[in-house]
Amino acid sequence: MTAITGAHFIAGEESREGRNIFTGVNPRTGERSTVQFADATPDEIDRAITEAKAAFEIVKAYPVEKLALFLETVAGEILRLGDVLLRTADWETALGIPRLTGERERTCNQLKAFAGYIREGSHVDAIIDTGDPDIRRMLFPIGPVAVFGAGNFPFAFGVCGGDTASAWAAGCQVVVKGHPSHPQTSELFARAVYGAIEKCGFPKGWFSLLQGAGEEVGQNIVLHPLLEAVGFTGSLRGGRALFDMAESRPRPIPVYAEMGSINPMFITEGAIERRFESLAEELVNSITLGVGQFCTKPGVIFIPDTAPAKTFMKHVVAMMDRKPPGILLNGRIRKNLVHAVEQSLRIPEVKLLTGGKAVDGATAFENTVMVTDAATFLKHSELQQEHFGPVVLFVFCENADEMRKIAAHLPGQLTGSIYAEKSEYHHMGPLFHELIQRVGRVILNGVPTGVRVCHAMQHGGPYPATTAPLTTSVGMTAIRRFLRPVAFQNVPEELLPEPLKNENRKGIMRLVNGRHTRDSISAPPAE
Amino acid sequence: MTAITGAHFIAGEESREGRNIFTGVNPRTGERSTVQFADATPDEIDRAITEAKAAFEIVKAYPVEKLALFLETVAGEILRLGDVLLRTADWETALGIPRLTGERERTCNQLKAFAGYIREGSHVDAIIDTGDPDIRRMLFPIGPVAVFGAGNFPFAFGVCGGDTASAWAAGCQVVVKGHPSHPQTSELFARAVYGAIEKCGFPKGWFSLLQGAGEEVGQNIVLHPLLEAVGFTGSLRGGRALFDMAESRPRPIPVYAEMGSINPMFITEGAIERRFESLAEELVNSITLGVGQFCTKPGVIFIPDTAPAKTFMKHVVAMMDRKPPGILLNGRIRKNLVHAVEQSLRIPEVKLLTGGKAVDGATAFENTVMVTDAATFLKHSELQQEHFGPVVLFVFCENADEMRKIAAHLPGQLTGSIYAEKSEYHHMGPLFHELIQRVGRVILNGVPTGVRVCHAMQHGGPYPATTAPLTTSVGMTAIRRFLRPVAFQNVPEELLPEPLKNENRKGIMRLVNGRHTRDSISAPPAE
Repeated sequence: MTAITGAHFIAGEESREGRNIFTGVNPRTGERSTVQFADATPDEIDRAITEAKAAFEIVKAYPVEKLALFLETVAGEILRLGDVLLRTADWETALGIPRLTGERERTCNQLKAFAGYIREGSHVDAIIDTGDPDIRRMLFPIGPVAVFGAGNFPFAFGVCGGDTASAWAAGCQVVVKGHPSHPQTSELFARAVYGAIEKCGFPKGWFSLLQGAGEEVGQNIVLHPLLEAVGFTGSLRGGRALFDMAESRPRPIPVYAEMGSINPMFITEGAIERRFESLAEELVNSITLGVGQFCTKPGVIFIPDTAPAKTFMKHVVAMMDRKPPGILLNGRIRKNLVHAVEQSLRIPEVKLLTGGKAVDGATAFENTVMVTDAATFLKHSELQQEHFGPVVLFVFCENADEMRKIAAHLPGQLTGSIYAEKSEYHHMGPLFHELIQRVGRVILNGVPTGVRVCHAMQHGGPYPATTAPLTTSVGMTAIRRFLRPVAFQNVPEELLPEPLKNENRKGIMRLVNGRHTRDSISAPPAE
Repeated sequence: MTAITGAHFIAGEESREGRNIFTGVNPRTGERSTVQFADATPDEIDRAITEAKAAFEIVKAYPVEKLALFLETVAGEILRLGDVLLRTADWETALGIPRLTGERERTCNQLKAFAGYIREGSHVDAIIDTGDPDIRRMLFPIGPVAVFGAGNFPFAFGVCGGDTASAWAAGCQVVVKGHPSHPQTSELFARAVYGAIEKCGFPKGWFSLLQGAGEEVGQNIVLHPLLEAVGFTGSLRGGRALFDMAESRPRPIPVYAEMGSINPMFITEGAIERRFESLAEELVNSITLGVGQFCTKPGVIFIPDTAPAKTFMKHVVAMMDRKPPGILLNGRIRKNLVHAVEQSLRIPEVKLLTGGKAVDGATAFENTVMVTDAATFLKHSELQQEHFGPVVLFVFCENADEMRKIAAHLPGQLTGSIYAEKSEYHHMGPLFHELIQRVGRVILNGVPTGVRVCHAMQHGGPYPATTAPLTTSVGMTAIRRFLRPVAFQNVPEELLPEPLKNENRKGIMRLVNGRHTRDSISAPPAE
C-alpha cells in the first residue's frame, strides 16, 4: 500500500497546485493528520472535467458488459484495500469499525447490484413504434458528472458511493469532490478506482478525485462548461448553493441534491400500548444510530396527548439518558447542532427533557430529547428544520386529525413513518395519504434509518428534502438521473443501437407498439 | 354557442378584474377583435391555483378510468365546438382551415392516446421488492401544473395540447396561461373543458384559463407557492425567464420549457445526386410549413462544397422564390424575424440568396435563403440561433468530417437530420453518433417537421432546446414529468395502493424482485 500523499488524482495523475491547506482531524482526540491536503485550483478542476469529457468519447462505445465488469472490479479493489481503509476512516470519522465494516459491504454490494442491473439491459428503457415514421427511443449517458461526497457516510455516499455507482452504471464519467472531513479515506478509494481502471482498460479520465475544504472548489466544479450533472448529499445550505449556481449557468444543468429531513414519525395510542418496550428501543436505536448523523434519523415524533404516551416518552428519555454520548463527525456538525438546539430551546413552549449541550473535551453532543405541542411546532419553522445529531423532538397531538393537519403543513421529507395497530388503520388513512404527498418513502411500523438498496427504493422527496423530487439517490432507478432519451426516426437496422434493433438479442424488456415484450420484431423497420 | 366574453375562467367562474387590456388581432388584415381581454391579476391567479390545489385533494382518489373518460370527453367536446373553433383560430392565426383541421384531429387523438395509455395502467411504473423490509414504489401525481400555451400550435400545444393532456393523464390539475396571440381560441377550449368537467363530475378547480399579454402574469403564476410544475412551449427568452423565476423560488419547481431549435440537417453528395428533385421539394415544404413557424423547422442545412450541391441549392432557392410568402402569426414574430435576419446578414461572409425582408401591408416575411461557409457558421453564435419563420441557411462543408466537427460544436437541438445513401452510411457514423449527444431525435432521410404522437417519441433535447433534457413534451412518456415516485416500506396489503398489491388485478407490467412480470405475488408482504 502506497502512503497517503494528500494529492488530487486527476485522470490518474497526482496533482498538488493549491495553497489553501487542510488536514483530516481525529474527532475523538482533536489530533490533526500529518498529511496535508489542498483546495483544488481552477486549473486542476478544468483538467479533471476536460479529461472526463475525453473519456466519455471513448467509453460511450464500450459494451455494457465492460461497464458491469468495471463496477464489480471496483468492489473487489475496495475490499483489497483491507483494514487500512477501515482504520483510516475510523480515525477520520469516529464511526467505529463495526459500522464501517457494514458500510463497506453495502458499498460493494451496491456497485455489484448496479452491475447486475445494467447487465440485464432493460434499464435503457427501449420503446419502439413501428409504422410511418418508425420511431425508436432509448436512454443514453449524459456525460461528465460531479459527485459531492457526504460526510456522514464516508463509504456508501462517498467516493464510490451511490451517486458514483449509478453515474458509472449509466456510462458517465465521475469527478468526485471528496468531503473535507475524511480526505485520507477518499484518497484510498481513488487508489481502488484506478486499480479497477487499470485492470479493465478504461481511460484514466473516467475518474478523478478533487479535494477541497473551501466553497470555491464546489463553485468552480459546478460552473465548468463541460459538466452535465451534479450529485450531492449534505446540508440544505450546501445543496441549495450548488443548485442555485448550476441553474444560473449559461447552460443550466441538473443538481440532484439530497439535503436531509426531519423524518416525521406518527405513533398511535395502540402502538404505544402494544409495543411499549420494543418501540422505545427501536426509536432510541434509530435516533442514536451513527450518533444521529443519518439523513433518515427520526427527528420529530408525534404522539397522542395521553398519560400512557407521556409515560412512553419518559421511558425513551431514560433510555436516551443511559446511552453514552457518541463522537460526532467533526466540529462543524457539533457547532451547527449546538446552534439548532439553542434556537429550538429559545421557544418558551419547547421543553428540554434530557441532554441539550455539547460534551466537553471530545467532539460530542449529549443525547437530547425535547418536547412541545402541535400548535408550537406549526408556528415555528425552526422546529421543522433538521437537527443533525442525536436529538429528537416529541410533539403532543390531540388526535389523528391533528396529526393529519400537521402532515399537511410539513415541508418535503425523505421519509414519513406511522406506528399503528391493525385496528387503527382506518383512522390513519387520511394521514397516510397526506404523507404520500409530502415524502419519498412511507413506512409502517418501522424506523426510517436503514435504506435498503433495491429496485423499488425511493430515497428522495419534495424540496427541501431534495432539489429533484422526481428522482432517487438510492436504489436502481438512481441511474435514470444520468440518462437522457434519444429518439431515432426511420433509422435503418444497421445504424440502430443494439437495444433498438429488430432482433432483441439480449431479450430485454421493450415497449413495442404499446405492448411490453421481450420478443424480437418480425417486420422490417421503415427505411 | 355562448358568445366569447373575454373573461378568465377560474374554476368555472368567469372573472374580469384586470385593467391591462389586449385583444386578438387578425394577422391577415391587422384588424383588432372587438372582444377585450385583460391580464390576469395576482388575485385571480391565486384563486385559480388555490382551486387547483383543492381539486387535487378530490381527484387524487379517483380511479384511473375516470381520468381516462375525462380525457376522451374533452376530445369529444372539442369536436362539438365545430367550425367556430376553426374559424376563430384561423382569424387569429392565419394558419388556414386545412392545417387547423389537421391540428384539431391531432389534439383530440393525443387526448385519447393518453386515455388509452393510463387505462392500461403500467405508466405508474410499479416496482416491488419483497423481503425484509418489503419495499414497493410507484408514481403519484405531483399536484397543480401551469401550462403556457404556444403561439404556433393553437390547438396541439394550446389549452388542451400535449402539456395539458399529459398533466391531466398524470392526475394533475392544470392552470393554463393562454397565448395572447389567440385569446378567443383559448376561451373556446375552456368552454369545451368545462363541458367535459360537467359531464364527468370533476371539480371545477381541475382546470382554469388565465389570459394575459404582460410578463407579470407569467411571473405571478410561476411564483405561486402551491404550484408544482410548469409546462412551456415558446421562445428561449421566455422559457429561460420562467425557468430562472421557478428556480429562484423558496421552493424551486421544475420548468419543462421547449424553446425551439435550429434543427440542423446534413446532406451528403449521394443524397443530392440520387434524390435531387424530391429532396428539394421535401426541404422547401418543411421550411415553409406553417410559414416556417415550427420548432422543428430545418433552419440550417449543411451541404458538401461541390458543384452539384450548389446546383441543388440554387434549385431550392428558385422553389422558395416561387412560393408566395405566408402570413406570420403576429407582428412580434415578424419583428423578431426581421431582427434575426438583419443580424445574420450583417456578417460579411453570409450571403442572401432570396427574400430577406418583411412584406409590406400584411404580417408577412419573404421566403428567405442565406448561405455561408462552415468556419463562419462556427464563429458566429447568432447563426446558431433560431430564425423563427420561413428562413433557411445553407452552410458549405468540406467533407463528412467537417460536418461531424460542426455537430460537435452545436448547442442542444430538438432534432438532427441526415440525408444519405446506404453506401455512405459508414462515412456518416461519426456524425450520427455526435448527433446522439446533441439532439432529442435523430432522423434519417426525412424532415424534422411532423412529430408523431406515439410511445417512443422524444420531443426535447439538451439546453437550449429545452430546460429539462431528460424529458419529452410529446409522446406518452411526457406524463412522467408530472409523476413523482413514492416508496412504501412494510405497508400491509390493505393500505397499499391498487398497483402495488400482491394481486395484480389489472395485470399491469411490474418489476418484481428484479424481474418484469404481469403476475400476481403469491407470498404475503412483510407486516
